[in-house]
Amino acid sequence: MLNGLSKRIERLSASPIRDMLTEIQRPGMVSFAGGLPAASNLPDFNGSIERGALQYGPSEGELALREHIASDLCKQGLNADASRIIILSGSQQGIDLVAKLTIDEGTPVAVESPTYLAALQTFSLFGAHFLPFDVDAIDTAFTKEKPALLYVNPTFRNPDSVVYDTAQRQRLAKVCEALNTIVFEDDPYRELVYETCERTPVCAALQRSQWVYQSSFSKTMAPGLRLGYLACSAELYTPLIRLKQAADLHSNRLSQQLVLQLLQDRSNVDRVTALREDYRHRRDHFNELLHRHFAGLATWQRPQGGLFFWLRLHTNHPIDTRELLPKALAAGVAFMPGESFFCDARQAASAIRLNFSHTDECDVEAALEKLADIIRTAVYR
Amino acid sequence: MLNGLSKRIERLSASPIRDMLTEIQRPGMVSFAGGLPAASNLPDFNGSIERGALQYGPSEGELALREHIASDLCKQGLNADASRIIILSGSQQGIDLVAKLTIDEGTPVAVESPTYLAALQTFSLFGAHFLPFDVDAIDTAFTKEKPALLYVNPTFRNPDSVVYDTAQRQRLAKVCEALNTIVFEDDPYRELVYETCERTPVCAALQRSQWVYQSSFSKTMAPGLRLGYLACSAELYTPLIRLKQAADLHSNRLSQQLVLQLLQDRSNVDRVTALREDYRHRRDHFNELLHRHFAGLATWQRPQGGLFFWLRLHTNHPIDTRELLPKALAAGVAFMPGESFFCDARQAASAIRLNFSHTDECDVEAALEKLADIIRTAVYR
Repeated sequence: MLNGLSKRIERLSASPIRDMLTEIQRPGMVSFAGGLPAASNLPDFNGSIERGALQYGPSEGELALREHIASDLCKQGLNADASRIIILSGSQQGIDLVAKLTIDEGTPVAVESPTYLAALQTFSLFGAHFLPFDVDAIDTAFTKEKPALLYVNPTFRNPDSVVYDTAQRQRLAKVCEALNTIVFEDDPYRELVYETCERTPVCAALQRSQWVYQSSFSKTMAPGLRLGYLACSAELYTPLIRLKQAADLHSNRLSQQLVLQLLQDRSNVDRVTALREDYRHRRDHFNELLHRHFAGLATWQRPQGGLFFWLRLHTNHPIDTRELLPKALAAGVAFMPGESFFCDARQAASAIRLNFSHTDECDVEAALEKLADIIRTAVYR
Repeated sequence: MLNGLSKRIERLSASPIRDMLTEIQRPGMVSFAGGLPAASNLPDFNGSIERGALQYGPSEGELALREHIASDLCKQGLNADASRIIILSGSQQGIDLVAKLTIDEGTPVAVESPTYLAALQTFSLFGAHFLPFDVDAIDTAFTKEKPALLYVNPTFRNPDSVVYDTAQRQRLAKVCEALNTIVFEDDPYRELVYETCERTPVCAALQRSQWVYQSSFSKTMAPGLRLGYLACSAELYTPLIRLKQAADLHSNRLSQQLVLQLLQDRSNVDRVTALREDYRHRRDHFNELLHRHFAGLATWQRPQGGLFFWLRLHTNHPIDTRELLPKALAAGVAFMPGESFFCDARQAASAIRLNFSHTDECDVEAALEKLADIIRTAVYR
């Protein structure tokens, strides 16, 4: 039994059918094992979908897609071949699987402050005891309690788009190695880069610690396809694939086919380049409008990548930004209150998260102006 | 707090964004809240996919699909409108969600014996303490320990294709009402019916107990699309939708679109009728071959629906059928050992499960003959 895994992993068993799958698919094998529909009874959807995508598939995902991902990860410095990659039904599923893998009631889990809210929610559901850390003070952060798991989003962190430099990444890896903590690196935004900056996965520097690295196809392709993937250290693969089986057997095959086709399409590199250009332009436009309407009201950094501006409001008294939301919604503007991104909402420091990628450019200014008015009223009440 | 829910549900929080989603989608709303890609940056997949299917969607699933399901459930006697239906990424996900909803370490969970192996695995992962029951002796089954959850597959049960008659369904419902046990009814095979028999959901008879009913599109449509659904009593909806959010945000929108199109297609009724005819024919052919090769070797019932024959081997000494599997695989035949379908493998009584829906008819006989030889050798060794 590996260090740092949850008690439930002792009760995790393999699926006999899923384990037999490779053997069953051997040419000439007659299988009475699974509960598969006859191929001839699969609907043809007017011929728009390849039959192979309609039948049950492997829990780990399609091999060709996993090979493509492995080769991409290798270029990033992360050495994980296809045999250590699992296709996910979106990267939220990876959070669920890693929580199941590592968290019992009271398990110490190190998290950034702020960090991705849906990770906090899922870890909390499983009973995590949070240890918030700041990467610049991480050397002395865990002297009292040692985290079993450390969750980190080092590249264009959600919500504040912070990106760790080389030294910060090295420090993080070193501390986790020393503590033998499992590192869970969540990296959905890495392709959305607008300025040159360090993006090498922290996991690439790990020699001894167990790790899970995950990313998503939602940000550069399409969220509705619900597809992501994880790579992990060798010892974590078997429990993770069994947890995947128990969660949804396997991910949608049609999405896997579509994503692979797109990845293999020679025009895809240009498409992603254009997407980056577009988001860079949207970011700059948004930034300009923020300067016009939020100067004096808030402080922010122009993000080097990702999808968000993080505004710290200038206020003498701390404001719970959740209380501003009903007013904003009534005025026709939605934003994300900052409180949800902290395991302790009291640390939230009157911040809000604003997405710049989705709203049509012509609609941004009027909405920002309304939002600034609402905030101004709350601050100077 | 409802009776019978797990401790983790006290820690279950809503996703602020997911909760805002309805408001955000109001016409005229400008949303800086989510992390949505710009619509114009979604790939067009050569125009084969509607743009709407590519963006993030509602956690509960597409309304039109949920309405279609609600109307279908109503015809079956189950009164659950669209507001109590959640689209699942396959019905295995429903098992995961209900386990999270109800099971802590040591929670008593009543299960049939035999029952669906992947339910046993997932419940066991969460720490279930199993109370196996026989529906005909259920009146006195829970005198010592009261189950918090009862999992049942009353129509063409996996693995043995048993179907409960009216009296058995009523007895089950009555006992669960008396114990105030949450009923989890798993019903993936109901459409695969070859002889007239009782198929009214057990949940339709419940007045007081909480319940979750689930089914799948894998058996009548296509497993690779990974789509199922659940309906539940009103009080369980909010925790279940939050658990769904934490598991994968929402299910694949493209699959939902394809399934809805197929359900709305006027030719679909004929397609399902033809599929039933085909499986009825396959069943009868399989049954005939079993009589030819397994007479004297095993006992079985011809299933009235579903996808499986369940063979109890005639043996003087109990056989662990898992030990026969390597020999069978080496001979080119796969089957499911019966042991996995029991929470206590010692109750397995030398049984095996054989699927009749998938293998080409011309390949069935030779494979059954090989399997019979392997079993004969093991039995008369």
